[in-house]
Amino acid sequence: MIVIGGGPGGYLAAERLGHAGKKVLLAEKETLGGTCLNVGCIPTKSLLNSAKLYAHARDAEPFGVTATEVSFDWARVQAWKDRVVKTLVAGVTATEKKAKVEVVKAAATLLGPGQVTVDGQTYSCEHVIIATGSIPASPPIPGLAGNPAVVDSTGMLAIDHVPEKLAVIGGGVIGVEFASLFAAFGAQVDVIEMLDEIIPFMDDDLSALLRKGMSAVNFHLSAKVTAIEGNTVVFENAAGQQRLEAEVILEAVGRRPLLEGWGAQEAGVATNRQGVIVDATMRTNLPNVWAVGDVTGRVPLAHAAYRMAEIAVAHILDPAAATQDGQIFRRESVPWAVYSIPEAAGVGLTEAQCAEQGIDVVAKTVPLTLSGRFIAENGVRAPGAVKLISERESGLVRGIFMVGPYAPETIWGAATTLETELTVADLRQIVFPHPTVSEGIREAAWA
Amino acid sequence: MIVIGGGPGGYLAAERLGHAGKKVLLAEKETLGGTCLNVGCIPTKSLLNSAKLYAHARDAEPFGVTATEVSFDWARVQAWKDRVVKTLVAGVTATEKKAKVEVVKAAATLLGPGQVTVDGQTYSCEHVIIATGSIPASPPIPGLAGNPAVVDSTGMLAIDHVPEKLAVIGGGVIGVEFASLFAAFGAQVDVIEMLDEIIPFMDDDLSALLRKGMSAVNFHLSAKVTAIEGNTVVFENAAGQQRLEAEVILEAVGRRPLLEGWGAQEAGVATNRQGVIVDATMRTNLPNVWAVGDVTGRVPLAHAAYRMAEIAVAHILDPAAATQDGQIFRRESVPWAVYSIPEAAGVGLTEAQCAEQGIDVVAKTVPLTLSGRFIAENGVRAPGAVKLISERESGLVRGIFMVGPYAPETIWGAATTLETELTVADLRQIVFPHPTVSEGIREAAWA
Repeated sequence: MIVIGGGPGGYLAAERLGHAGKKVLLAEKETLGGTCLNVGCIPTKSLLNSAKLYAHARDAEPFGVTATEVSFDWARVQAWKDRVVKTLVAGVTATEKKAKVEVVKAAATLLGPGQVTVDGQTYSCEHVIIATGSIPASPPIPGLAGNPAVVDSTGMLAIDHVPEKLAVIGGGVIGVEFASLFAAFGAQVDVIEMLDEIIPFMDDDLSALLRKGMSAVNFHLSAKVTAIEGNTVVFENAAGQQRLEAEVILEAVGRRPLLEGWGAQEAGVATNRQGVIVDATMRTNLPNVWAVGDVTGRVPLAHAAYRMAEIAVAHILDPAAATQDGQIFRRESVPWAVYSIPEAAGVGLTEAQCAEQGIDVVAKTVPLTLSGRFIAENGVRAPGAVKLISERESGLVRGIFMVGPYAPETIWGAATTLETELTVADLRQIVFPHPTVSEGIREAAWA
Repeated sequence: MIVIGGGPGGYLAAERLGHAGKKVLLAEKETLGGTCLNVGCIPTKSLLNSAKLYAHARDAEPFGVTATEVSFDWARVQAWKDRVVKTLVAGVTATEKKAKVEVVKAAATLLGPGQVTVDGQTYSCEHVIIATGSIPASPPIPGLAGNPAVVDSTGMLAIDHVPEKLAVIGGGVIGVEFASLFAAFGAQVDVIEMLDEIIPFMDDDLSALLRKGMSAVNFHLSAKVTAIEGNTVVFENAAGQQRLEAEVILEAVGRRPLLEGWGAQEAGVATNRQGVIVDATMRTNLPNVWAVGDVTGRVPLAHAAYRMAEIAVAHILDPAAATQDGQIFRRESVPWAVYSIPEAAGVGLTEAQCAEQGIDVVAKTVPLTLSGRFIAENGVRAPGAVKLISERESGLVRGIFMVGPYAPETIWGAATTLETELTVADLRQIVFPHPTVSEGIREAAWA
């Protein structure tokens, strides 16, 4: 078995195949762990944790705790992040070793089914899993390419100081997390988003609530960036042309699947604008060639890559059992999380998506101030809400969305709710511990 | 309808009956909200939040955040707690009003089925719900009663300063939460527990891990308190008699159902040592007399009371539908949470309970250091674990237990897992967001 790419999808597939007794080669041209571990989820969460500690230490007075001279040491914040990444990369390395996976630090090229070149040597193999991931998308904005004031998320993670003024192009997950992070550390942050709301995975009412919670950040919505001139972002909104000067400009307009450099075209792998075309079992058009993770263009999140890897492995090891066990990728029960301040998370279809698809639903939004723990920890006026979307006739839960603390840790229960196809009546019979913020979901079910 | 007692079980039952169009009288002799809201879960969580903020501000240096002179103002910590309680009591009051429930601030006496005296007036009614709750249990220890150095949990919540030395008798939820709270604020805390481990709801390996996490607290296990002499707790352990002096002695040996003062005996309500005897639908031995919450002696937690209230209301409003919908109290899918530092939570049967009941299980414990978020936020050596217990043959999940941050907010998903009767194979198909601490549950399922 050959796995191309050592990010979450690739390293998990390799590990599982290795433990199943297969001979596995894992080719990774950079560092094991991929984007998520090296320049994505993990380093951002480490920096955001420091940001949250800083903000909490500074703002704890209403709760009777005061700290004079709260300060941060950016070099130390960064050093801790680097140590976390290093520790986790070492963990992945050890895991692969334990699974007897041969890791080769080199680029790989798919020649065709069962034929891969790694580091100049051509191997024959039974199955190939493509897990080459994605790279930051760079929009064709005049003055962006080569501009020293512009960085992408990878550059931003490595920055050696907190800029005084930061302009973020893009109000998706990456943009919003970096905006929260640097605003918490005192930067003046502007987010410029082309659409009329941030975070497209949830309905506008919740996105607006999240913006309200990020009160230190200036948001420019329905704003199209037309040029970058030195340190100035030029954009157009309803009021006309705007100019915004910033010390650093972060381009965070999304990521695109990496379809070049590993032989996709030469080997005849079918792709489209989204990425490598796969069916629900992760099979590509070529026999015994599978694709998992960001390269498929389906839910570009590490845990979606994990799930895709598990599905591919299940079908490689025992296709009959995998089919019987329903091992297919169900996009609608994949949760997402934003580790902003406040946090947000969700799973399933939004109210707007249900309307588009002609699904007749009831949508209920309840404030988190219904939760005693939320009030005790955040105050009586803090923004936070749960939105529950269910089919009007059957009560089937189609979506659960949350803005507020603990959302990322709470949402797996919502994924379980969707995956097990519970109705609102079923959800009402689930016992939520009291007092928790998760009870907001219970309150929404009773609403 | 008459509801006796305005705690979580009583106020929820009254509200739901009121919204269903019933004429409801709710009798509460003290304050709406009961123990949980006034002298239980809510005030402790408010104080614990301040304690966590204090501890975080003090200990954030490894994450690059420093605060000089971190201090707390106990009066302000208490004032915030009081405001939270007041806000939530006002919330319950408003909720009952909205549901058109008549709230009478008076004791009530059950005369028999359909007959209740409230504030000197006798009412006839269709149904009676007993929700009188519980009170702190006071063990017969010589020198305890009337000792000014001894306080119960209610007294401890109102204390006007952080004692220098605190002795806690009892290592259950209440004892452990207060120990965490005052240790975080700098008190020297000793916990004296009669059993050989703290927190009896989880297996000893996890309880030991929780103790390890509470490194500032001294635990004395298998230690029987024989007397209290002034400010000295006298106890016996394997090493013989011990004497421990403390400024304040907290008795936290548990709570007992309140079976007196509301006519249980006179009306002929069947009780045993645990409390009012009820079936799985919350019916007592008397027709149309129901009991919910702590007074039943079944899972003395606010959310269990909520669930019991919902079950009783479902059967009162439509017995046929309630029976068809499976509205019964399933103890095994009621989660519990401890808001200590670190936190803990769980649901279902422990490994030890399964052994007692002759259930052949596989128990897997995995460290939370498998979670990237856990490491980023707590360091590589922080204690934390998930334990998953499943039937060996079928893979049916029987218990999920967790020691570590976010456990209380994570555990409702585990309750959903048990309530929907998922197997380990099913749980492996659930997608957990990455990177979260909740992924520890996923890791345990794959282990």
